[in-house]
Amino acid sequence: MTQTTTTLSGQECWGLLRRHELGRLAFHLAGEVHITPVNYAVDGETILFRTAEGNKLLGVVMDSDVAFEIDGIDAQEAWSVVVRGSARVLEGQEAYRAESIPLRPWVGSDKHTVVEISADEVTGRRFALDKPWEHIGRG
Amino acid sequence: MTQTTTTLSGQECWGLLRRHELGRLAFHLAGEVHITPVNYAVDGETILFRTAEGNKLLGVVMDSDVAFEIDGIDAQEAWSVVVRGSARVLEGQEAYRAESIPLRPWVGSDKHTVVEISADEVTGRRFALDKPWEHIGRG
Repeated sequence: MTQTTTTLSGQECWGLLRRHELGRLAFHLAGEVHITPVNYAVDGETILFRTAEGNKLLGVVMDSDVAFEIDGIDAQEAWSVVVRGSARVLEGQEAYRAESIPLRPWVGSDKHTVVEISADEVTGRRFALDKPWEHIGRG
Repeated sequence: MTQTTTTLSGQECWGLLRRHELGRLAFHLAGEVHITPVNYAVDGETILFRTAEGNKLLGVVMDSDVAFEIDGIDAQEAWSVVVRGSARVLEGQEAYRAESIPLRPWVGSDKHTVVEISADEVTGRRFALDKPWEHIGRG
């Protein structure tokens, strides 16, 4: 069998993380696992996102253990980057870190709280696709 | 402020789930939350995916509580559908359910085990995007 999966280096993973801005956050909430899309930006080797009061914020305040994922696909290949780490709300002056990076809210709602994910582990894979049929496009 | 977020009906959520095939599974593993992309298909109102031995399978065998997400974005809007539910490995004859739906492996590796997510809750949102600048495309 041909090798169809390639492991990405840490540098490649951070490169992909820096070039994208929509990811998915998985977090604990009351013993359950939850997942939600988030608009994010990279600051150094941390991931920042904004949130309003709600499940996302409550989840990471109660249990900082989180996972974060981005992925992409085209006709020939798919790739994904997964970050495992811990999340914390940035307080006071620290929250201003979000002002100097391209972390802007997409939706016109008030999302004042900035959350940082610090990475314990970053892994990425690239998959050559075996596709005898046409896949449906995203969107 | 204009209303920029719309809640999708259950029917709209299942319609989107049926039209797509790449989602992200969040699951528990040894007390941590993990996330991974999965190629899936809808069968009735359940989600099926294939997996090989590994973290994904171990996770859902140890703790069936899972969350699953799909999303999409274009110039004007973004949307997401989140399924919360429980996962189980389909055994024996049940696994043949995967043969009658378009659930094919994208990558040429052996993924013999079929996992079913039965939904406890399906929620979806559509967001009109506030974008004074150009967002980077996916890929």
